[in-house]
Amino acid sequence: MAKRRSLDTDPCPVARSLDVMGDRWALLIVRDAFDGMRRFGEFQKSLGVARNILADRLRRLVDAGVLETRPASDGTSYEEYVLSPKGQALFPVIVGLRQWGEAHLFGPQDARSVMLEQASGQPIQRLALLDKQGRPLGPDDVKVKKVER
Amino acid sequence: MAKRRSLDTDPCPVARSLDVMGDRWALLIVRDAFDGMRRFGEFQKSLGVARNILADRLRRLVDAGVLETRPASDGTSYEEYVLSPKGQALFPVIVGLRQWGEAHLFGPQDARSVMLEQASGQPIQRLALLDKQGRPLGPDDVKVKKVER
Repeated sequence: MAKRRSLDTDPCPVARSLDVMGDRWALLIVRDAFDGMRRFGEFQKSLGVARNILADRLRRLVDAGVLETRPASDGTSYEEYVLSPKGQALFPVIVGLRQWGEAHLFGPQDARSVMLEQASGQPIQRLALLDKQGRPLGPDDVKVKKVER
Repeated sequence: MAKRRSLDTDPCPVARSLDVMGDRWALLIVRDAFDGMRRFGEFQKSLGVARNILADRLRRLVDAGVLETRPASDGTSYEEYVLSPKGQALFPVIVGLRQWGEAHLFGPQDARSVMLEQASGQPIQRLALLDKQGRPLGPDDVKVKKVER
């Protein structure tokens, strides 16, 4: 059996990100946090995941600095989990997963959730990688290069 | 123990995407395919993952329509795995994971890979969600709404 390579020191940023976030529950917890959920019970109800798995994933996300804990806003003894700035920066990843799912995993009759602009109430546009002139870049327009320090 | 909710019929597109792609190996295979890898042995060498796990993830990605198999381009009996159009559409997700990792998971001295524009050789810009006027939208500028069909 091949030895599993450690991803947290990998020179590829995609690999390091997946070392932290390469788990469906981690990414769904972050999605729910963007939707305003803060409490263990809210995440558990939303995700239908076993309590021990949820507790493990929340702890890992706190250890990784993606979530921060704070005392409950209503003065009870509960802890709340909120996205740190590092967690908030996952917004494009969540939007990218959403738009890929919308485009490729739904039939025309399927009930679905949609993301709308607060200000206009209109559906958001597609996430885009643009060059400095504002033209969209696709996979064939980029290359990956190793940088030694 | 809570019953695990099936994600492949979930009304949330993020959940459906993670039902297919919510696994570090699946996303790393797609990254490698964007980098031009096509063969089992290439993926294995790149990922350092056990053969049985790699075989399982490749099969799932083919079943999901993310990868397509084709005969080896050199006339040997090997199969090659290439991204389908559905797989190519994961480009923003991979770029989003890359940019999050670059911003939050590297020290200044860490060796790293960078993504450059082919045409200019310059680093790519940040992936952006823009409104129709071209202004960037953050998590507080959007809302999620359920749509019944």
